[in-house]
Amino acid sequence: MALLRKIGVYFSKDKIFLTRLKKLTGFFPSDISPYKTAFTHRSSLGSGSKPGQYNERLEFLGDSVLSLVISEFLYEKFPNDHEGTLTKIKSAMVSRKTLNSIAESMGIKDLIKVKLGQDPFPVSIGGNALEALIGAIYVDKGLAVSRKFIINKILIPYYNIDEILNADENYKSKLIEWSQKNKIKTFFKVLEETNEEHQRLFRIGLFVQDELKEEATAKSKKEAEQECAKKLFLSGFIEKWQN
Amino acid sequence: MALLRKIGVYFSKDKIFLTRLKKLTGFFPSDISPYKTAFTHRSSLGSGSKPGQYNERLEFLGDSVLSLVISEFLYEKFPNDHEGTLTKIKSAMVSRKTLNSIAESMGIKDLIKVKLGQDPFPVSIGGNALEALIGAIYVDKGLAVSRKFIINKILIPYYNIDEILNADENYKSKLIEWSQKNKIKTFFKVLEETNEEHQRLFRIGLFVQDELKEEATAKSKKEAEQECAKKLFLSGFIEKWQN
Repeated sequence: MALLRKIGVYFSKDKIFLTRLKKLTGFFPSDISPYKTAFTHRSSLGSGSKPGQYNERLEFLGDSVLSLVISEFLYEKFPNDHEGTLTKIKSAMVSRKTLNSIAESMGIKDLIKVKLGQDPFPVSIGGNALEALIGAIYVDKGLAVSRKFIINKILIPYYNIDEILNADENYKSKLIEWSQKNKIKTFFKVLEETNEEHQRLFRIGLFVQDELKEEATAKSKKEAEQECAKKLFLSGFIEKWQN
Repeated sequence: MALLRKIGVYFSKDKIFLTRLKKLTGFFPSDISPYKTAFTHRSSLGSGSKPGQYNERLEFLGDSVLSLVISEFLYEKFPNDHEGTLTKIKSAMVSRKTLNSIAESMGIKDLIKVKLGQDPFPVSIGGNALEALIGAIYVDKGLAVSRKFIINKILIPYYNIDEILNADENYKSKLIEWSQKNKIKTFFKVLEETNEEHQRLFRIGLFVQDELKEEATAKSKKEAEQECAKKLFLSGFIEKWQN
């Protein structure tokens, strides 16, 4: 059966596409058509093209498949963590930026049919095609194969889960380090404490040399402090200070 | 087998819970514990409670299951529609407000273990428990049963898909009607046309008596116009004008 399929592939007019697809996913498709659509960018078709002919609808579907597989993975991998922690890790994992960069590393680009006036083409086209590919796998093979593809071909090779989990923890330590090294006074202060639908919320301010620089709201002081420190680092403030 | 299970239920200490659950979902659980967690609000536990004991983690999971089932449903139900249309319908379908109101109608409230100082309790607790219930079904029975529950017990009884699909179309017609009836001049005008990542975007303005009242940006003029008209209606402007 597998052999017959293999022979079929090598006589197929889609030989190159199928070989690349197999390399990318680890399996041969049962139905090639959704995969062809997944790698068809709107720009490669004429103006009379229909939504089913290019990859945006499959991207819509693939986005949800990816989301479920990652939610389930985190739910099982971190049985003792709060929903808030899972949500935070997940957001980092499925961010546009992350997906674009994974698609780049996977070489998704080489499979995409696209017609653009410029070069290099926008990285988001790769990330979108990766989501569309997940949609195609789901349509062709169902959830179990999609899950296997996402875990074995995306999560394991491209993510360091522990690093993602600890990423937020590091900003506060980094801030303390930076502040001690440069002898700059920094401190956190509770600006407001509220109750919303029986959920306590803390609005925390981060002060640098007595000046309020960042603020963040979260369910715990610790979380809000981390968020403040993260914001300060991401704002470029620290970099500017050092230069 | 079904009979044995039924007899088991009636000797169970969870008899009332199981009977209500069966009425809600249409089936008996294989493992009761995730369902118990799904209906346990954080407030009903002591301060030393662990994330696995209350429903927020299951809500996290259920949110993704619901999202996939609805995406798949729309993908199949509307084979000729753009991704943008599917996204718009989906957003309306899974909005917090919609889920809260469905949970209310389903009587989810009666099953929730909650300890709050006030009455009536926040509607969001119901919507969250509904998502957690979907998460519990997924953990207990997998995707196929979750899909069946969502379609048969949520989508079919509580949604009018055609109405959702047409909701946006109506605002522009409503605007024209209103404008003719009240002899008020309204028109749309392209304010800007841009290209972003090879995607043409139109920023459209809606003018009432030559005054710019609303603007919206979309991939097509028609879509942006609908959005403008919708904004105007939702802003309460039309109502105020009539009073």
